[in-house]
Amino acid sequence: MKKIDINCDMGESFGNYRLDQETLILPYVTSANIACGFHAGDPGVMRESVRRCLEQGIRIGAHPGLPDLQGFGRRFMAISPREAYDLTVYQVGALAGFAVSEGGRLQHIKPHGALYHMANADAALAEAIVEAAYKIDPELILFAPPEGALLAAAGKIGLSCAREAFADRAYGADGKLLPRTAPNAVLEDEEAAADQALRLAEAADTLCVHGDHPHAAGMARAVRTRLEAAGFAVGAFR
Amino acid sequence: MKKIDINCDMGESFGNYRLDQETLILPYVTSANIACGFHAGDPGVMRESVRRCLEQGIRIGAHPGLPDLQGFGRRFMAISPREAYDLTVYQVGALAGFAVSEGGRLQHIKPHGALYHMANADAALAEAIVEAAYKIDPELILFAPPEGALLAAAGKIGLSCAREAFADRAYGADGKLLPRTAPNAVLEDEEAAADQALRLAEAADTLCVHGDHPHAAGMARAVRTRLEAAGFAVGAFR
Amino acid sequence: MKKIDINCDMGESFGNYRLDQETLILPYVTSANIACGFHAGDPGVMRESVRRCLEQGIRIGAHPGLPDLQGFGRRFMAISPREAYDLTVYQVGALAGFAVSEGGRLQHIKPHGALYHMANADAALAEAIVEAAYKIDPELILFAPPEGALLAAAGKIGLSCAREAFADRAYGADGKLLPRTAPNAVLEDEEAAADQALRLAEAADTLCVHGDHPHAAGMARAVRTRLEAAGFAVGAFR
Amino acid sequence: MKKIDINCDMGESFGNYRLDQETLILPYVTSANIACGFHAGDPGVMRESVRRCLEQGIRIGAHPGLPDLQGFGRRFMAISPREAYDLTVYQVGALAGFAVSEGGRLQHIKPHGALYHMANADAALAEAIVEAAYKIDPELILFAPPEGALLAAAGKIGLSCAREAFADRAYGADGKLLPRTAPNAVLEDEEAAADQALRLAEAADTLCVHGDHPHAAGMARAVRTRLEAAGFAVGAFR
Repeated sequence: MKKIDINCDMGESFGNYRLDQETLILPYVTSANIACGFHAGDPGVMRESVRRCLEQGIRIGAHPGLPDLQGFGRRFMAISPREAYDLTVYQVGALAGFAVSEGGRLQHIKPHGALYHMANADAALAEAIVEAAYKIDPELILFAPPEGALLAAAGKIGLSCAREAFADRAYGADGKLLPRTAPNAVLEDEEAAADQALRLAEAADTLCVHGDHPHAAGMARAVRTRLEAAGFAVGAFR
Repeated sequence: MKKIDINCDMGESFGNYRLDQETLILPYVTSANIACGFHAGDPGVMRESVRRCLEQGIRIGAHPGLPDLQGFGRRFMAISPREAYDLTVYQVGALAGFAVSEGGRLQHIKPHGALYHMANADAALAEAIVEAAYKIDPELILFAPPEGALLAAAGKIGLSCAREAFADRAYGADGKLLPRTAPNAVLEDEEAAADQALRLAEAADTLCVHGDHPHAAGMARAVRTRLEAAGFAVGAFR
Repeated sequence: MKKIDINCDMGESFGNYRLDQETLILPYVTSANIACGFHAGDPGVMRESVRRCLEQGIRIGAHPGLPDLQGFGRRFMAISPREAYDLTVYQVGALAGFAVSEGGRLQHIKPHGALYHMANADAALAEAIVEAAYKIDPELILFAPPEGALLAAAGKIGLSCAREAFADRAYGADGKLLPRTAPNAVLEDEEAAADQALRLAEAADTLCVHGDHPHAAGMARAVRTRLEAAGFAVGAFR
Repeated sequence: MKKIDINCDMGESFGNYRLDQETLILPYVTSANIACGFHAGDPGVMRESVRRCLEQGIRIGAHPGLPDLQGFGRRFMAISPREAYDLTVYQVGALAGFAVSEGGRLQHIKPHGALYHMANADAALAEAIVEAAYKIDPELILFAPPEGALLAAAGKIGLSCAREAFADRAYGADGKLLPRTAPNAVLEDEEAAADQALRLAEAADTLCVHGDHPHAAGMARAVRTRLEAAGFAVGAFR
C-alpha cells in the first residue's frame, strides 16, 4: 500500500493579524509547516500552532523564511549562503524551543516562499540550509521539490528528504510550478486539485495543500478523500 | 576556597552595526550572555558569538530581551506574562539552535535590560520567564538579582539560580542598582569597580562586567585580578 | 444646527495581512485616521487609503502609533517626550508625503492606541506630540479626549482641537473609556451605540466608530442615521 | 569657474548603535543624504542630522533605502515598481517632516545602496522612484549616475538631475563602479581619492565621499582641497 503525507503551511498569523482559516484544513493533513517569525508568525502564534498540531497528532516542521514580513517572504532577496545558514539555524531553533517546551519534537523543515525557490536553484544556498538543518538535528526530514539543488544537497550530507508536490498549485508544461503571479497559478476547483493530487502522488512523498483561500477546507478534504479512495494510506512520511 | 563566576553581555552587534569592543573583555570572564535578536544581535552575530565563547572555554547563556531593537530593550513595555513566556521560549530556542549546531550547550539564561527589571518586580512575569526556561531545559541556570521575584520564581519551579551582582554599576543606599539614567550610574574607575566587586562577591555567585565603555577591558581585568588576589577561584557557576 | 464629525481608523492592513472590512464603514464617516506604518499600515496601504478617502471626500488624518507592530500599538511603552516628538514627526511626515503626492492635504492628527492614552495622562508626552504636529503644520487639528493633557497641550501652543468621543466603546461611571481588556468594553448593539452617540454628540466635535468588528457597517450606519434624525449635520470639523 | 557639489551619506546611526564618525566629514561637504529609517537611521537620528546640516549650511536630501536594516539596504530585493514608488514617498515624506519642523527644506533625493543600483538598471523602477519624488516636490533634485535609467527617467518627467560620481570608490575599465565586494573597491589613499575626484569632477555635478572608513575626514579634506586648488568652486548644485 503506497503511503502519502499531506502537509500545509501554518502559524501565519502575526500579532493582531489573524489568519485562522488555516486551522480548517488541519483535519485533512498529517504534517504542518509552521512559520517561524521572519516572513510570518510570532512567538505566541508559534506556541499555539505547535500545541494544536500536537493535540491533533499532526507532525510539526519548521518553515523558515526570508526576513521580510511585509513581503511575506515572497520577494527574492540576495542573501549569501552564510546568511541562509544563519537564518535557518535561528528559525529552526526558535521553533524547536516551542516543540520541546510543549513536549513534542520537530519532524521536518521546509524553506518558505522565495527561500524555497531560491535555494532549489542555487547549490550553495541549498547546501547552507541543509547543513543548518543537519547540524541542529540530523534526524530532520527536508521537504523539497523532487528535482533540484535542495534534494541534491540533502543527499550529499545525508539528510532524509521527502519529495514534495503541490496539490493546488498549477504546473507548467515543463513540470515546474507556475509562479504565483501567473494567471491560474492557484487551482480553484476541488476536483481538479484532487485529480492533480492523485497524479502527483505516484512520484511524491508529501503533497502540499494551502489554507489561505476561501475553499481551502473543501479542497483539502477532496484531495485526501481521492487519495484514500485510490488506495493510498495518508500518513506522516516516517 | 570561595568560587565566583564573572559574566558579560555579548553579541550585541546588529547587521552593519558592530560593537566588537565587547570581545576585549572575554579573557576575563567565565560566562557570556548572548543577545538573541530582539533587543540586539542577529543570526550571524549569534553564531559568531557562540563559536568564540566555545573556543575560549566561556559558558554561554541566552540573554532574551524585549522586542525593541531601537530602544535596545531598555524601554519598559507592558507585555503580558503570556507574551513574556513566548518571547523567552523563542529567543532561548533560537540561541540553543546555535549552541547545538556549534557543538555546545546553553548553560544559563539572563533576561536583558528592562525585561530583567520588570520581571524581578512582578511575580507573574518572573514565573512566566522561569517556566519558559524550565520547559526548554530544566538544567538551565537563571542569573538573577539576589532578591526579588526572579529568584523566588526559580525556587518555586526548581530551576537553579545564580545570584548576580554588578561590578561596574552603582548601587543606592537601599542596596538596589541605580537606574542607568541616574548620574554616576556606571562606575568609571577601575579600582572602584574592583573594590565593589570584592565586596559583592561574598554574597553573589556571578558578577557582571560590561563591555560597552571605553575602559571595559581594563576594568574587567582589574576586577578579576582583585578577586583572585583575595583568594577567589574565578570559574563557571557549576 | 449642531455639526458633528464622524471618524474611523483606517489603513490598518500590513503586507499580506488585509483588514479590508474597514472600508465598509467609509460611507458613514467624514474623517479617517490613517495608520502610518509603526503600529499598522505600510507604504502601499497608506497610498491606497489616502486615495480612497480623497475619492470619497473623506478628510484624512495621521494616526501615529508606537513602534510595535506585533502589539498593534496597544502595549504601553516607556518612551521619552523626545522620542514621542520624533516618532510623531516621522509618521505624520510620511503620511503627508502620500497626501501631497495624491493631490490632497492632511486635516488632522490623532495618536493611536496606547500613545493616545499615555499622552493624555502625561503633560510632557502630550506637549511633545502637539509640538510635533504644530511644527509640521500649524493648521492641523488634533483629535483628543474632551479632558486631559492633549487638549491642554494643544491650547497652550495654539493648535486647534476636536473633542472626540467613542460611539462604540463603553464608558465607566467616571466618564472615562473602559480599557479594551474590560468585559463589554466594546458595544455590540447598534441601537446602544446609536443611543450613546447621540448622548455624546452634544459635548463632542467628532465621534469615533470602529471598523474592526463584524457588524461595523451596520453600527456606523445606525450612528449616523440617529444623529441626522436628531438634527445634526454630519460633516468635517472645519 | 566650474562648480562642484560634494555630498556624503549621513544619519546612519540607529538607536543605541552610533556611527558618529560621519560627522567628521561635514566640514568638507555641501550636501548630505540622510537615511530615512528603512536601511538605517531612526526618527531621532533624522532630527539630529537635519538640524546639524541646517546649522552648518549643508543642503539636505533624502536617502531612501530598501526595508532591510539588517542588510543595511545593500541586499538586492525583488520589489515591484509600485513598491519602489511607495517606499520612496514614505521615506521622503518622513524626512520632509523633519526638514519642515526644523525650518528647512529638502534639496534632493538619492536612492541608497541596492536601490540606487537596481533602479539605475531598470527603467520601471527608476520611473517609479522619480515619479514619487516629483509628486512630493517637483523642485527636488535627483542625484544619479551620469548614465542609466535614473537620469533617463528624470529627464522624461522633468525632474532636475545632478550627475554623481564617487571620489573614494574604485571604477572598472568600463567606467562603472566596482561592487563593494570586489577587492580594492574602496580607495584607501587620500591622494588617490583626490586625484580621482579631480578627474571625475569635469563630468559630474556632485561627488560623493563616504564617512564610514577610518580616514574619512582626511580623505574628504584632501578631495575638497584638491578641487579648490584646481579652480573649482565647491558649493551646492543649485
